[in-house]
Amino acid sequence: MQRYFIPTEQFSPHTVVISGDDAHHLTRVMRAELGEKVICCDGKGRSVLVCLTVIGKTEVEADIVEDLPITSEPVVDVWIAQSLPKGDKLETVVQKCTEVGAHRFIPFLSERTIVQYDAKKEEKRLIRWQKIAKEAAEQAHRSVVPEVDAPISWKELLKLTADVDLAILCYEKESGQHLRSVMLREAKRIGLANLHAASLVDAAGGGQRKPRILLIVGPEGGISEKEAEQAEAVGCKATGLGPRILRTETAAMTALACILYEYGEMGG
Amino acid sequence: MQRYFIPTEQFSPHTVVISGDDAHHLTRVMRAELGEKVICCDGKGRSVLVCLTVIGKTEVEADIVEDLPITSEPVVDVWIAQSLPKGDKLETVVQKCTEVGAHRFIPFLSERTIVQYDAKKEEKRLIRWQKIAKEAAEQAHRSVVPEVDAPISWKELLKLTADVDLAILCYEKESGQHLRSVMLREAKRIGLANLHAASLVDAAGGGQRKPRILLIVGPEGGISEKEAEQAEAVGCKATGLGPRILRTETAAMTALACILYEYGEMGG
Repeated sequence: MQRYFIPTEQFSPHTVVISGDDAHHLTRVMRAELGEKVICCDGKGRSVLVCLTVIGKTEVEADIVEDLPITSEPVVDVWIAQSLPKGDKLETVVQKCTEVGAHRFIPFLSERTIVQYDAKKEEKRLIRWQKIAKEAAEQAHRSVVPEVDAPISWKELLKLTADVDLAILCYEKESGQHLRSVMLREAKRIGLANLHAASLVDAAGGGQRKPRILLIVGPEGGISEKEAEQAEAVGCKATGLGPRILRTETAAMTALACILYEYGEMGG
Repeated sequence: MQRYFIPTEQFSPHTVVISGDDAHHLTRVMRAELGEKVICCDGKGRSVLVCLTVIGKTEVEADIVEDLPITSEPVVDVWIAQSLPKGDKLETVVQKCTEVGAHRFIPFLSERTIVQYDAKKEEKRLIRWQKIAKEAAEQAHRSVVPEVDAPISWKELLKLTADVDLAILCYEKESGQHLRSVMLREAKRIGLANLHAASLVDAAGGGQRKPRILLIVGPEGGISEKEAEQAEAVGCKATGLGPRILRTETAAMTALACILYEYGEMGG
């Protein structure tokens, strides 16, 4: 069944309003008729089955038939921190990792980032990345649209590690640890061994939340030795992804798949 | 260190000849000089360190200094059978799966394959796919260039299942099994539990070979119910990849990463 992500403010207790591109897609592309049913998600975890009641020129109104159970969201929130890669590679990362099940994207700038960062120009790209995340989430039948943050500095990224339960830095070095051993060893601590009891107390809100893993991927030229030391100093686990050298845009999607596989999320 | 895949016939007992694009890259792009060392691979598993002895206009000659140990090839051969997808998606599949560690690509045509197949036109595309596999293998520091076959029919693909130790059909259905449980259950039989003793006898050659897994991914519209039944009848395991719906080109790379992760190949 067709599904649309609708801003929260367009949800009323018993009705939703579908507007803009989504209304156009529904009426012109799908040629929907009164009484038809579609799924509307608020992108934050709520999905409802709705029945179309008014089809207008620019808006569609619909009655909420029932709240749908959330079955397509991972038991763990994985945040992908990716050093800004060249060209449109970040689009690939956002699209593929949204399909696989990422929860948030944090582009960052590091020592060897090749891309010249221009905040004004990047505003347009950020909107594009967010659009790609929304479309990939719809396509993958997710209930949550991953957030895409504006690019931050390496220092700001290191501060963010305080908000997660496990931070993995993709980094190849002699003395490094490997993804599988890191996952198995950290399992108990972050609730991998006991999934359904694995909601942690959120320091900010005081409520319960899922375990959070931050996955940090360097740029084409890699993370510098100094940066790796800084990351390890704040508790990141420098982790190898095996003997084959992965392109920067391949590292995030494959490491994410492996982490979610460990949680039984890639077909448990 | 720079590495080049050189045809086997350009290897002599103590020397190699580097020609064509590789010679151009070495002399013009890298501006290599006499006495410099590079790595040459035959693409079938042999890697040697060589020292440049003659730099000609179109060819470079080099002495073999030593045979290098093979450390970057997976302990299991995974064959990716992908129903021909639209546009240049197969290029993405070949590139990403070569980086991750695939051993062979088998494009195929199935009931819902959208692409009109034209053998003449496809010849050019096949050469392009093989070039992408070679370049990705070089970039990933592999010793083996995965083969890319010319597209085959669904019937021919089903026959190929006789040559592998485990055939996994990516397929979502109520009664289906899940990737992790399939991997764990099939583990012992195909040598997962006892990796280093896991060389199997090759029916054709009589020699020892690695365990072989065939991973079958359907087209955009999926595999038909009839095709799934046919696949199961020849022993394929219909396997789900989790609750999120992956695009056809995402399924192969993520399932491959998870399979190799189970073998300790994504950072064990």
